[in-house]
Amino acid sequence: MNKQITATLLAECPDQPGIIAKVTDFLAKKNANIVDLEQHVDVADQHFFMRVEWQLSDTDVNRELLEKEFSEYVGSVLKMNWSIAYSNLKPRLAIFVSQHGHCLFDILSRYQAGEWNVDVPLIISNHKNYQSSAENAGIDFHYIPINADNKQQQESTQLALLAEHRIDTIVLARYMQILSANFIDHYPHQIINIHHSFLPAFPGAKPYHSAHERGVKIIGATSHYVTTELDAGPIIEQDIVRIRHNDHVEDLKRKGQDNEKIVLSRAIRHHLQNEVLVYKNRCIVFD
Amino acid sequence: MNKQITATLLAECPDQPGIIAKVTDFLAKKNANIVDLEQHVDVADQHFFMRVEWQLSDTDVNRELLEKEFSEYVGSVLKMNWSIAYSNLKPRLAIFVSQHGHCLFDILSRYQAGEWNVDVPLIISNHKNYQSSAENAGIDFHYIPINADNKQQQESTQLALLAEHRIDTIVLARYMQILSANFIDHYPHQIINIHHSFLPAFPGAKPYHSAHERGVKIIGATSHYVTTELDAGPIIEQDIVRIRHNDHVEDLKRKGQDNEKIVLSRAIRHHLQNEVLVYKNRCIVFD
Amino acid sequence: MNKQITATLLAECPDQPGIIAKVTDFLAKKNANIVDLEQHVDVADQHFFMRVEWQLSDTDVNRELLEKEFSEYVGSVLKMNWSIAYSNLKPRLAIFVSQHGHCLFDILSRYQAGEWNVDVPLIISNHKNYQSSAENAGIDFHYIPINADNKQQQESTQLALLAEHRIDTIVLARYMQILSANFIDHYPHQIINIHHSFLPAFPGAKPYHSAHERGVKIIGATSHYVTTELDAGPIIEQDIVRIRHNDHVEDLKRKGQDNEKIVLSRAIRHHLQNEVLVYKNRCIVFD
Amino acid sequence: MNKQITATLLAECPDQPGIIAKVTDFLAKKNANIVDLEQHVDVADQHFFMRVEWQLSDTDVNRELLEKEFSEYVGSVLKMNWSIAYSNLKPRLAIFVSQHGHCLFDILSRYQAGEWNVDVPLIISNHKNYQSSAENAGIDFHYIPINADNKQQQESTQLALLAEHRIDTIVLARYMQILSANFIDHYPHQIINIHHSFLPAFPGAKPYHSAHERGVKIIGATSHYVTTELDAGPIIEQDIVRIRHNDHVEDLKRKGQDNEKIVLSRAIRHHLQNEVLVYKNRCIVFD
Repeated sequence: MNKQITATLLAECPDQPGIIAKVTDFLAKKNANIVDLEQHVDVADQHFFMRVEWQLSDTDVNRELLEKEFSEYVGSVLKMNWSIAYSNLKPRLAIFVSQHGHCLFDILSRYQAGEWNVDVPLIISNHKNYQSSAENAGIDFHYIPINADNKQQQESTQLALLAEHRIDTIVLARYMQILSANFIDHYPHQIINIHHSFLPAFPGAKPYHSAHERGVKIIGATSHYVTTELDAGPIIEQDIVRIRHNDHVEDLKRKGQDNEKIVLSRAIRHHLQNEVLVYKNRCIVFD
Repeated sequence: MNKQITATLLAECPDQPGIIAKVTDFLAKKNANIVDLEQHVDVADQHFFMRVEWQLSDTDVNRELLEKEFSEYVGSVLKMNWSIAYSNLKPRLAIFVSQHGHCLFDILSRYQAGEWNVDVPLIISNHKNYQSSAENAGIDFHYIPINADNKQQQESTQLALLAEHRIDTIVLARYMQILSANFIDHYPHQIINIHHSFLPAFPGAKPYHSAHERGVKIIGATSHYVTTELDAGPIIEQDIVRIRHNDHVEDLKRKGQDNEKIVLSRAIRHHLQNEVLVYKNRCIVFD
Repeated sequence: MNKQITATLLAECPDQPGIIAKVTDFLAKKNANIVDLEQHVDVADQHFFMRVEWQLSDTDVNRELLEKEFSEYVGSVLKMNWSIAYSNLKPRLAIFVSQHGHCLFDILSRYQAGEWNVDVPLIISNHKNYQSSAENAGIDFHYIPINADNKQQQESTQLALLAEHRIDTIVLARYMQILSANFIDHYPHQIINIHHSFLPAFPGAKPYHSAHERGVKIIGATSHYVTTELDAGPIIEQDIVRIRHNDHVEDLKRKGQDNEKIVLSRAIRHHLQNEVLVYKNRCIVFD
Repeated sequence: MNKQITATLLAECPDQPGIIAKVTDFLAKKNANIVDLEQHVDVADQHFFMRVEWQLSDTDVNRELLEKEFSEYVGSVLKMNWSIAYSNLKPRLAIFVSQHGHCLFDILSRYQAGEWNVDVPLIISNHKNYQSSAENAGIDFHYIPINADNKQQQESTQLALLAEHRIDTIVLARYMQILSANFIDHYPHQIINIHHSFLPAFPGAKPYHSAHERGVKIIGATSHYVTTELDAGPIIEQDIVRIRHNDHVEDLKRKGQDNEKIVLSRAIRHHLQNEVLVYKNRCIVFD
């Protein structure tokens, strides 16, 4: 793959003629070589969405100037919400985990193989199970147990650690605690959760038990951004596994866990590649 | 395929040692050649389920005697609920349809190709759209419009037609009317519906609109037996289609309809092959 | 969906900076409202691919002038292969079928429901099985039996019928005859076939028998453009069905046929929507 | 799940009436509680296959006597090939790996979570990459580089290590060396490989490159028992991933690796659960 530095624009604005021409014309004048462009129009809402990735012609490009000019000549004219990410600035990710390790191990396997453009400096858990796994991977591990009495104080400790490690994105890798609204507000659309059902079916606790009781023929997993409404945030990725009449709840858990880890890792990748735009509690995923 | 006449036993009873031995020993003494046997134990409920299909050694076998002896030596001993179907007795099926024809055409295509062991003597609709399609296929078509005032009376007309045609099984091929509890009681676990969502997500009307609004990445279809609780009957078959961010509601409908017709036809086949046992609002499907 | 007339450009050329800007700038100056734009760069080949769909600002737009100007200001400058299709000019499609009717019935069901923007004036078959089905749908049916001796002459008859009906695209809906190179040359990348295997596995005859003998766990279907090399043309669409150890060859056929008809219909739709570009025997499908 | 010790019979013999009755009658007389029974008849070959799992009534059951009696009263009478496994005798597994770690990490994650009934005492590699991962998991690691000159000698070293660790099953977790026929003969149907294509498509080296060049729309992975014919052994499990026109070869590798590890782990589980019977180079998988 091309290892040249790229910039990625994510943008959305009211639909109108000439948006793509205006954006690509701006980039052409900067001698940018566009390597990927995707756009989407929500016809019902008359709203426009766009992702453009281009090679930076010069690694010393003045980013401040680039963004100032983009804002002036494109963004403000089109009433655009936009952001630009640069591939040489690695996002920093923290993992929260409880006692199920399958998602954590899957993430660590990819991290150690260099599959993603990311740094993972911090793992936080309310259990000690995975302390040595974290240490073997060279990642700071903090054991922060949570109960009804200490939750607010422990979240403050967590927030301080996240700030100290300059974390951009938090992954809840089967973290079995509900985050407070205050905590979530610090990381809007930057906390990625995996829920072990095909949402909106079976939100909340014990979805595999509910799936078994309802007698569904297929189980699912859903990765979404965390919002203050439980299991109702914008969905980034979902997938399913077919089950059979002879699968007990334990079989659903086992088959489901394979699905959970793949779905979560795909969602993380979409997020890290700047492929996700959130609009009206829905994710536009430019894959 | 083997065209010899077969008998199929569906049975369920409290789990206990020796059930299979008792059943297969009974059949061995009748010189039955078993061509398929599947069993399943619900460990949590300690309940046993079984499907056995065997070749009848003699087409003149005395069915009354066979069933009387089975009841005496096996069924009553094991406190079994059981039934035996014979492949030379074709089930008789009626189709109810409204204005969406994709499921109807899929069923008719299979019927005309002889894919299923079934007779389809009757189509009932609250619209006239598919009258000529029915007639081309040589099937009686009855136009029975429904409104709030005539519903009870029209259902009586429907029930009379079903009785007259000696119908065993009713397929609701996107029939957009809710059946009364009285009607349903006439055909317990013999009315097969297709719902255009991945139940229990999005029950009720307009599931594709709801799916689009929630921003799911996958849509589904569910075929189930109709019970008096709407969209909550035992699920026979489900399947899904992946969608993308650029799919509008109309695209969801189009992609979903392909899925609906395949799911419904698979469910009908399972039912006609005597592969489905209902227990506690769940279907055991011996596929 | 928007019923306004749209134009769709399909284009490919050597990759170079500024292609999108040049195309969209051209369209902006024509006051075209772009409703969809997708592009793709084959990095290894340094080749660029593009599909743009826009609303025609005026139904009386002078197409000759538009294409002349596009050629002059964009196409020739970028050394582009390109074509423009207009949504109010319906493609005309002919169906070739033999004795398996499942794909034919699926196409007719969609045609009668108005699912596609297409006219189907002609069905040709080497058997008489589906004459009445064609006639019920109001489509000309021609019985043209083929054997080793009459093949060249019968293909001439077919070509004359195709010309007479001004056919753009031919669908081989399980047509069990191999077309001559001469015939294929009349319709380059305009003949769509369905092969009942996951190509390149199991080309040629009896793929379900081969799949059963090899013991695969999944069977597939492949829709591709016909080229002179058997079952080796550019692939438009594929899909699969999982099978089990208890499926006999007859079960593979049955399950496979459901897959075949869906895969073929998806491929036809991609083709009719002008979503397919062929490059080096591969299809770029802008879905 | 039930932690009681179970025995599992795998058996195949020419089809004939009364097989199931004979087997289950034998077990009933031993007071065995059958927890699962699956059978399958290959109608074309007139051959019978069976898997029965039952709870041992007494952990001190005399296995030699049980098997002697089974052989005498059932096996020899029916000309059966059969074996019985006991759940309290853990299989011992060795992993062979080269430089791709995704399958290895997936296996280790499951091993450490106790997902399988297995011991993994040995990892062998022709590279040193995963020495510390093995050691962190408490598994013996042996670096055994292979080249054209030392292959025979190094295989002898491997065989000695396998014997020393009393290994039952070998998993080739993307091990990029071809085993000699002599080596394979030591472990008939006990060496499980993962091939990164949907076999029989794309056997041999670089299947993702071949898939990209052929323009397939779906890629696959295949886990099979190793035989002396390369990539042609009996298939245990397969699965697929859909790809898009904008996926480069590197994307195929990345998406494919997720699939490979899941397919391999499913195949290992089927093998460890004694769910696989090999017959005429096909696997009957009782799932």
